[in-house]
Amino acid sequence: MRVLGIDCGSQRTGYGVIESDGLRHRMVAAGVVAVDRKLPFEQRLLAIATELRRLIRQHVPEQAAVEGVFYSANVKTALKLAHVRGIALLAIAEAGLELAEYSPLEVKISVVGYGRAEKCQVQKMARSLLGLPDGSCASPMAGVDSEDACDALAVAICHASRQATASRLAL
Amino acid sequence: MRVLGIDCGSQRTGYGVIESDGLRHRMVAAGVVAVDRKLPFEQRLLAIATELRRLIRQHVPEQAAVEGVFYSANVKTALKLAHVRGIALLAIAEAGLELAEYSPLEVKISVVGYGRAEKCQVQKMARSLLGLPDGSCASPMAGVDSEDACDALAVAICHASRQATASRLAL
Repeated sequence: MRVLGIDCGSQRTGYGVIESDGLRHRMVAAGVVAVDRKLPFEQRLLAIATELRRLIRQHVPEQAAVEGVFYSANVKTALKLAHVRGIALLAIAEAGLELAEYSPLEVKISVVGYGRAEKCQVQKMARSLLGLPDGSCASPMAGVDSEDACDALAVAICHASRQATASRLAL
Repeated sequence: MRVLGIDCGSQRTGYGVIESDGLRHRMVAAGVVAVDRKLPFEQRLLAIATELRRLIRQHVPEQAAVEGVFYSANVKTALKLAHVRGIALLAIAEAGLELAEYSPLEVKISVVGYGRAEKCQVQKMARSLLGLPDGSCASPMAGVDSEDACDALAVAICHASRQATASRLAL
């Protein structure tokens, strides 16, 4: 299956597309939707929507996965992020993709096998599972911030693994 | 000028379109974007986006006004609302409309002339300014919840009044 993972952020939104049979994962594309921070907020949302739609058309994922709403200590940041998340969910619904949501805990357990894993361990493991050398998971085209791309790949891997497990259990 | 006001809500999103010269206001349309609550959240966002785009095409506003982000005591509700608000800002940006944001305080001062006005006073005054009989500001087509429509009309009136004042001051 081909899975799009999105890591929404108030500043940067990471994306990762993987091809997976649930056990073996291959990166198709990953990067960051870079938006001019000087633009008014609604124009930034428009730019993010336009880019996500373009990525979906280009890579034709069958399913999409995002992290659930994160209750940050910083309410202002969380509310900005929720605006962006609304845009991401809309782009997914517009494309008719199936959507799955996972908590950070679920992503950690699925990718690292340990719910209290550090963020950098998740990213390291995501890179390893995709057979990428350390520190290179952002694609050259949009490699502004590889951490956000890695987080997006991690949630895509989490979804692919869990879907495969669910299918096997259903047999 | 023709102004679209939107009152985003996690459950219902009110809209109001007015025609105004800054002093006299006339309601063009108002109502509530009704969405099936049984739908998955991303499908609800898609339905809201589709309906807002349709309303913009139908009524061709020149400008749009929404309330700023509201820091609710209920974080979960505020985060859901922010998703919807992201969709509304996107629809406004897609249509190339100018966007203005106002705080609840600004709306109250502009519509009622008193910053500590009760919500129902704002709604009563919005109806009065539009020459509508009490309790009828939602249009028959979508009059599920007239309060949300009234709130949307109030933010549109606030914008029209302030724009007119700003123009006069600039003369």
